[in-house]
Amino acid sequence: MGKIFEVKSRDESSNARTAVLKTNHGAIQTPVFMPVGTRGSVKGLTPDQITETGSQIILANTYHMMLRPGADIVAELGGLHKLMAWDKPILTDSGGYQVFSLNTLNKINDNGVEFASHIDGKKYMLGPKDSIGIQNKLGADIIMAFDECTPFPCPEDRLKTAVEKSIRWAEQSLNAHDREEQLLFGIVQGGIDLDLRSRCAEELVSMDFPGYAIGGLSVGEGHKNMIRAVNHTAPLLPENKPRYLMGVGMPPDVIAAVKAGVDMFDCVLPTRNGRNAFAFTQSGAVRLRNSIHTKDKSPIEEGCDCYACRNFSRAAIRHFFNVGEMLGPTLVSIHNIRFFQRLIHSIREKIEEGNFSSWADEQIENYQKCGLCRDF
Amino acid sequence: MGKIFEVKSRDESSNARTAVLKTNHGAIQTPVFMPVGTRGSVKGLTPDQITETGSQIILANTYHMMLRPGADIVAELGGLHKLMAWDKPILTDSGGYQVFSLNTLNKINDNGVEFASHIDGKKYMLGPKDSIGIQNKLGADIIMAFDECTPFPCPEDRLKTAVEKSIRWAEQSLNAHDREEQLLFGIVQGGIDLDLRSRCAEELVSMDFPGYAIGGLSVGEGHKNMIRAVNHTAPLLPENKPRYLMGVGMPPDVIAAVKAGVDMFDCVLPTRNGRNAFAFTQSGAVRLRNSIHTKDKSPIEEGCDCYACRNFSRAAIRHFFNVGEMLGPTLVSIHNIRFFQRLIHSIREKIEEGNFSSWADEQIENYQKCGLCRDF
Repeated sequence: MGKIFEVKSRDESSNARTAVLKTNHGAIQTPVFMPVGTRGSVKGLTPDQITETGSQIILANTYHMMLRPGADIVAELGGLHKLMAWDKPILTDSGGYQVFSLNTLNKINDNGVEFASHIDGKKYMLGPKDSIGIQNKLGADIIMAFDECTPFPCPEDRLKTAVEKSIRWAEQSLNAHDREEQLLFGIVQGGIDLDLRSRCAEELVSMDFPGYAIGGLSVGEGHKNMIRAVNHTAPLLPENKPRYLMGVGMPPDVIAAVKAGVDMFDCVLPTRNGRNAFAFTQSGAVRLRNSIHTKDKSPIEEGCDCYACRNFSRAAIRHFFNVGEMLGPTLVSIHNIRFFQRLIHSIREKIEEGNFSSWADEQIENYQKCGLCRDF
Repeated sequence: MGKIFEVKSRDESSNARTAVLKTNHGAIQTPVFMPVGTRGSVKGLTPDQITETGSQIILANTYHMMLRPGADIVAELGGLHKLMAWDKPILTDSGGYQVFSLNTLNKINDNGVEFASHIDGKKYMLGPKDSIGIQNKLGADIIMAFDECTPFPCPEDRLKTAVEKSIRWAEQSLNAHDREEQLLFGIVQGGIDLDLRSRCAEELVSMDFPGYAIGGLSVGEGHKNMIRAVNHTAPLLPENKPRYLMGVGMPPDVIAAVKAGVDMFDCVLPTRNGRNAFAFTQSGAVRLRNSIHTKDKSPIEEGCDCYACRNFSRAAIRHFFNVGEMLGPTLVSIHNIRFFQRLIHSIREKIEEGNFSSWADEQIENYQKCGLCRDF
């Protein structure tokens, strides 16, 4: 399929770049933000509505899909694209994050993790071979190596063991993968320990994955720690391959990571917060249940071109939340995803115009001031 | 505004007709089916999705809107059309049905009903003057006279008193109404007592409303009783004015009522059943939670042109219900509303082609066989 990742332009005063990433379901303009469709649906939106937000690619969770409806059923139905009615690119994670975070009853050994389903307690085994087998059946365009995610904070010993295990599992994932049209990304672990990040990156780079993720961040370490780890790790990854910062994040996290050379992001915040009436705007959070909006004729965000802002007042959306109508969560989720897509679109534009860095610093400062930021 | 109701074609062997009903927000092709947007939202659908189902007009409930957000706030926000982001016709009911059915703590006197809100127990008074005042503020294109709805079965005395009260209240509603661009319909009551229906119709017709509704049916009396009352009442109402059968209904109810000369229908069944994974099809109900659909690649209904059927398998929709994704209720509600719009479109087509009656009888028989029918 020729060159899969082509850098289009580079920022002179940072590592930011724009590029095109080619997948089996079309090309993606990077930097890119992926909304999350945990169980095969971006909560509250139809695929048409997701497309209208300007989203190019969706993330779905291997862990959730393997439990219900199950990878074999998804395959029998024609794969994840068919099930989700989404014919653009899809990325699946490895399931690693969920088996470590959703399950207290898990046993880790060298082959993977034995865990009990959070739904019915049924026992499953998930390791590199299983995860890749399942992801091959789901059929996403980009799939992830199986890794061990560590919490924050994490004792040094455990972090080190997890990195070594993730390196072995990355190699096993690569060996288990047999569908060439799916791009398999390796995941660099190591928490906020820069030496471990270096060690992990070096090993994974030698395995020659078509793309690399930085995992194990956005787990409570805060903006500064996260960005320090990203600034250290991103340059260790090949210039000519996509870099994906998993599970990130708040707007200043995204902007700072792009400066470090990151190309891809995913986050549940736009939909999770949207369902709770929390809207993202450039001036900070708008909480739409607040009675201050009872008679507020203005849209969620002046100047926003999303379906919610073009058609509904804050007062109307507050009413829908107040009486429990599904339309409320749907509208704010649409706005929030569009907010992130407008942000990432501006990032691409600024990089291509050659004035990204100063703009990025202003933006980060603004979002920190207005509170749309993780703890420092 | 000229002639508001113009009959286009008549069926030779029944009272069915097609017509155009002109409103302040555009013309409606009748017979017409109105989805219900109880609290200012057709549950689970955006206005764009409602439009895509072919719906021409939405019903909203005065009772619910007067409690939350309140008629004054709706007026201040620019009216119901603005709040709902729906610039096509809207009909509001009078609130009568809800104060009688949702409230046990109500006191009926000659001026209306004193009731306690089902939400917070706050006391309200709702009579003809109040209801019309509220409906004037909400600003729907078609509004309804305030009436007393009786349950089924209903003692003869109570039924008679309710009819006399509804006649007086109809006149008071007419006198209270002061926004010419809103069409005020009178409502014929009388349960399944044909003499009372005659008495009520005669009085209301003499008041010269621009349109008439048949109320107090679809409350447990069954298909045969309902259609007997409709067959008796519809011909008592003026030929040159629209006739609206409130709260109806199942497909055979709608078809039989069109035969009797009814032009307008509303019903919560498409959305209420849709949220419960119950899909309407020409072959009967499809219950999408059923495990029989786990691997079913077919759409909800073969040949249906709705968004759900064009894009999703039964297996995918079952999965969304199974894991609790909002997309399930949304997709089945879209299908069900489109099902009713396709039904009503076929009805209009058959009337205009001149072969409605025989088709109608076949259809009624089919729906009775496949179970999509009320009890007889």
